[in-house]
Amino acid sequence: MPGGTDQTLRPFLWRAERMYPDVEIVSRTHDGIERYDYAEFGGRVARLANALDEAGISDDARVGTFCWNHHRHFETYFGVPDSGRQLHTINPLLPDEHIQFIVENASDELLFVDPSLLEKLAGAADPDAFDSVRQFVVMGETVPETDLDATDYESFIAGRSDEYDWPTLSEDRPAGMCYTSGTTGKPKGVEYTQQMLWSHTMATITPQGLGLDDTDVVMPVVPMFHVNAWGMPFTATAAGAKHVYPGPSPDPADLAHLIEEEGVTITAGVPTVWLGLLEYMTDNEVDLSSLEQVIIGGSAAPESVVRRFDELGVDVLHAWGMTEMSPIGSVARLKDGMDEWDDTDRYAKRAKQGLMVPGLEFKVIDEGGDEVDWDGEEFGELWVRGPWVTTEYFERPEANAEDFEDGWLKTGDVVSVDPDGYIEIVDRAKDVIKSGGEWISSVELENALMAHDDVNEATVVGVPHEKWQERPVAFVVAGEERDSLKDELIDLVAEDYPKWWVPDDVLFIDEVPKTATGKFSKKDLREEYSDESLV
Amino acid sequence: MPGGTDQTLRPFLWRAERMYPDVEIVSRTHDGIERYDYAEFGGRVARLANALDEAGISDDARVGTFCWNHHRHFETYFGVPDSGRQLHTINPLLPDEHIQFIVENASDELLFVDPSLLEKLAGAADPDAFDSVRQFVVMGETVPETDLDATDYESFIAGRSDEYDWPTLSEDRPAGMCYTSGTTGKPKGVEYTQQMLWSHTMATITPQGLGLDDTDVVMPVVPMFHVNAWGMPFTATAAGAKHVYPGPSPDPADLAHLIEEEGVTITAGVPTVWLGLLEYMTDNEVDLSSLEQVIIGGSAAPESVVRRFDELGVDVLHAWGMTEMSPIGSVARLKDGMDEWDDTDRYAKRAKQGLMVPGLEFKVIDEGGDEVDWDGEEFGELWVRGPWVTTEYFERPEANAEDFEDGWLKTGDVVSVDPDGYIEIVDRAKDVIKSGGEWISSVELENALMAHDDVNEATVVGVPHEKWQERPVAFVVAGEERDSLKDELIDLVAEDYPKWWVPDDVLFIDEVPKTATGKFSKKDLREEYSDESLV
Ligand SMILES: Nc1ncnc2c1ncn2[C@@H]1O[C@H](COP(=O)(O)O)[C@@H](O)[C@H]1O
Repeated sequence: MPGGTDQTLRPFLWRAERMYPDVEIVSRTHDGIERYDYAEFGGRVARLANALDEAGISDDARVGTFCWNHHRHFETYFGVPDSGRQLHTINPLLPDEHIQFIVENASDELLFVDPSLLEKLAGAADPDAFDSVRQFVVMGETVPETDLDATDYESFIAGRSDEYDWPTLSEDRPAGMCYTSGTTGKPKGVEYTQQMLWSHTMATITPQGLGLDDTDVVMPVVPMFHVNAWGMPFTATAAGAKHVYPGPSPDPADLAHLIEEEGVTITAGVPTVWLGLLEYMTDNEVDLSSLEQVIIGGSAAPESVVRRFDELGVDVLHAWGMTEMSPIGSVARLKDGMDEWDDTDRYAKRAKQGLMVPGLEFKVIDEGGDEVDWDGEEFGELWVRGPWVTTEYFERPEANAEDFEDGWLKTGDVVSVDPDGYIEIVDRAKDVIKSGGEWISSVELENALMAHDDVNEATVVGVPHEKWQERPVAFVVAGEERDSLKDELIDLVAEDYPKWWVPDDVLFIDEVPKTATGKFSKKDLREEYSDESLV
Repeated sequence: MPGGTDQTLRPFLWRAERMYPDVEIVSRTHDGIERYDYAEFGGRVARLANALDEAGISDDARVGTFCWNHHRHFETYFGVPDSGRQLHTINPLLPDEHIQFIVENASDELLFVDPSLLEKLAGAADPDAFDSVRQFVVMGETVPETDLDATDYESFIAGRSDEYDWPTLSEDRPAGMCYTSGTTGKPKGVEYTQQMLWSHTMATITPQGLGLDDTDVVMPVVPMFHVNAWGMPFTATAAGAKHVYPGPSPDPADLAHLIEEEGVTITAGVPTVWLGLLEYMTDNEVDLSSLEQVIIGGSAAPESVVRRFDELGVDVLHAWGMTEMSPIGSVARLKDGMDEWDDTDRYAKRAKQGLMVPGLEFKVIDEGGDEVDWDGEEFGELWVRGPWVTTEYFERPEANAEDFEDGWLKTGDVVSVDPDGYIEIVDRAKDVIKSGGEWISSVELENALMAHDDVNEATVVGVPHEKWQERPVAFVVAGEERDSLKDELIDLVAEDYPKWWVPDDVLFIDEVPKTATGKFSKKDLREEYSDESLV
C-alpha cells in the first residue's frame, strides 16, 4: 500500500538528541536548578525505558504521572510513549475521589509522583481503586517518609543502559492520556495516539501555531498534567529549542527569575499566572527583555493583560483549545495588514480566541441546527474536527453519543465568528466553572449541596473574578432558612472537596429561574449576580 | 478506536477559502496576467470537481496534467485530490517514449494539457499507450488546432455549481502521483497519499521547513510537474499566503517583473533559474526589495549564488529532497549562534544540504553496512524514512526490493554528516567514482574545477579502467579555451585533493549534455568517452 512510515514521537527525540546535543534543559526542583543537555536527556530517556522494561511494566501499559513541571517529568514524556506505553498525566489538584476514579479507569501499572505530592497521592490511594498499580516511583533521589511502597527515580533508572532500541510503532497506538472534568459525572479520559501527538506537534511548530525554532527558550508554566503542558515539551523538542521547567508551585518571583536567568523567549500559562507576574512587577524590577511571547489560554485573556505586556515589549498570543484537542485549536494572531489597524481594533482582535490553525476545520451550529453566518454577531456551538481532535472518550459510550457527531467534536463553547474568521467565545454551553485554569464541576457541587436536608434546590454558577477568571457561587432554595445554613453548606462542601472548590458565596432565593424548556437558567443567575460581582 | 479524523488536503482549501477569501492568486498566462482570490479559487475548484463527476471520470481515477505553472493547474491541485481522485503531474520535457510509458502505467482517465504543450502531447499520444484516456482538456478558453479530440478548460467547468460536497476521505487514499526517472530503465511512479501530502505540507510550513505565513507572497518557479512544485501550492494555501504562478517557460525578465509587480517574498527553483536571473541583473535594473528568500534545490546551490543573493539582501535557502520524499527532506538553515560565525564558515554551512526537518529520520550507511560517524568526513549512502517518504514504487517489485529496506528509502545519495548534523551530498551513488576500492566524489571535483575563472561548466565522470576499475575524467565547458588550461585545472585539483583524485584526462566540450529534467547527463558522457577508453 502506498504511504510513508507511521507518525510517531520517535523522530522528534532523535532529532533533538542528534542535531542539538548541546542545547539545554533547565529544571527548577526542590533542590535548586538542575541543567543538562539533549544528549544527556536522550541517554536518561533510554535508561528510563530500560528501567520500565526491567521492572516488568507491560510494553503497552498505562503509566501515570502525578507531577509538576520538571526534567524528570519531561523524561517520561518520551521514555513512556517511545517504548510503546501510554503516558497518563494526572492532575494532582483534583478531589481524591476523581483521582481514584481516574487511576482505576486507566488501570495505571506504575505511578511517578513528586515528593511534594506524595502525601496527597497516599491519601487518595484507595487499595481497590489502585489495584492495578504495581509500583510507585518518587521523582527524586530519595523517598520521603510515606505509607506507599515506593522507589526513588534515580535508583529506578540507575545502572540501566543509555541505549534503547526504540520500536517501530503504529501511529494508531495510544501514546498519551488525560482526563477532563466533564459537565456531569466522572472525569472523561481522552487518549492521544502517536499520530495525534505527532500532528499536534507539527501544527504547533508552524508560524500559525506557536512558531518555534532553535533560537527559542521555552518555559511551559501551564502544568504538564494539563494536556501535556499544551504539547510544548514535544513541540520544543521537535524544534530543537531550549526547555525551562519551573518546577513545583512556582511563584511569580520564581518565574521572573527563570525568565531573566535563562533568557526565556516564549512561555505559556493561564491568565491567573500572568496576572500574578504583572502584579509582582509593580513592586519588583524584572528584566523581561529576552521574552518575546506569552501564550495565554485555558480561559479568556483579559485585554488589560495583553495591553500591559505590550507596553513591556512582550507579545501576548491568545490561544484556545481543549483536552479533547491535544489541546491547541486556535491562536489569535493578527493577519497581514492588521498591524496597521488602530489600537482599539487591534486589541479587540487579539482578545478573541483567534484563527483555527492549519489542519483543523470548524463550524458553528445554532439552536436550529444551522451554521451561523460569519458576521461576528450570530452565535452557536463550536464544532471542530481534525487529526489531533479526539473522536471519542475512553469507555464512555453515553458521553460519546452526546459530544461527537460524524467525526465532529461538539466543544460546548458558544462562539461567534467574525468576517475575518476569528472565533470569539461568548458563552459556555457546558455546566462547568473554570477557576484559575482548573475545572470545578457545578453539578457535583449542586449534588453536594442538595444532600443537605434543608436544601430543596441548589444551583452553582461561575461568576467573573478578576484573579481567578471565574469563581463558583451557589444559589439555594432552602426548605427552612436559618442563619447558620450558609456556614453549614460551606462546611459540607469543604469536607469532601479541595478548598478551591468551595463557593465564594451562597445566596438564598425563592425559586431557581428556568428556561423555556424547564432547565435551570444559569445565564440569568450569572447576570443577576454580576451586580454583586466578585470582580 | 482512539484517534482524530483523517489527514487530508481538504482543511487547507477550506482554511484559505474561508479565512483568506481576499488573498490573491496571480497567474502569468499566454494572454497576460490573470488574478483572482481564494474565494473565487474555491468556487472554481468546486466547479472543476463537479465537471469531473459530470464527465463520468471515476471517483478514484488518475487524472494527468501536462502543464506549466498557472492558476488552472493550481485548481487541479485541489479539485482532483479533494474529490477523491489522484493528481498525476507529467513532465512534458520527457522523451515521448517515457510519456507513453507513464500514461499507460498510470492509466490516466483524463489529461489536462497546456496549449503550448498540445503539440508535444499529440506527438506522444500513441493510441495503445493512451488507451485509458477518455478526455483531453486544454488549459484555456479555446482549443488550438490539434489532432486530439479536446475540450477547453473554461467550457469544461462552465455552468457547474461552485459548491461541492467534499467527501470524507481516508488518509491512505492516493492523492497524487509523480514519476521519477530512475538510473536505469523506465521511470518509476511514486504515489502520494492524502496523508503524505498533509504531512509534507505541515512540515514545510514550519520555520524548520519554509516557514510560511499569510504575509508571504509565494512564487514557485520550480515546475508544478516536479513533485508538485516542491509542495508549495499546498503549503502556501495552508498558510493563507498569496500565490504567484510564472506560467509557461518564464524567462528571467518575466521572473524579475513578477517579483517587482507582485511583491514576491519567497520563490523556489533549481540553480539554473537563479543563475539566469542573476545574469539578467547584470544588464538590467531589478528591484528585489520585496524578496526575502530564494529556495534552491534539485541540484547543489553554488556558493557564488548564495553570496550574490546575500549582497542583494536576499536569503538563499538551500534545500534537498527527492520525488520519493514529496519532496522536501533537509534545509540548510543556520542554527542559533551560527549567524555570528565568520563568512567562510557560514557560507560553507549554507552550501550544505542542511538539517533534516522535524518528522524525518535518516542514517548514513557505508560500504560495509555500518553507520558512518558524524564527523563531516566519512561518507556513505543516505537512508531516510518518515510520513512523507514513500515506502514503495508503483508496480515495481524489483526496484522496491532494491531501493527500500525496513521502511527506509535508500536515496542513492552519498553524503557526509558534520558534527552539527548537516548533511552534505558528496555524490550520487551512481556517479561516485570507485577507484581502486576508494570513493572519489565527482561533485567535489566539479566544484573544484568550476572555481577556476575560465570554467563555465564542469562535470566529472568515472570511466572504466583496467587497473583501477574506474578513473575520473573531466568534461569542461571553458569560457576561454587556452592551451594551458588543462594543466592549470589539473594543478588546481592536485593542490587540494589526493593525487589519485586528479582526473586522468580533461576534455573540452561545447556544452554538457542534459537530461529532460535539466540535470547533467553523465550517462551520455560516459558513453561518449568510452571510445577513448582508459581500459
Ligand atoms: N482562550 C480561551 N478563552 C476562553 N475559554 C477558553 C480558552 N481556552 C480554553 N477555554 C475553555 O476551556 C475549555 C477547555 O478546557 P480544558 O479541556 O481543561 O483544556 C474550552 O472548551 C473553553 O471552555
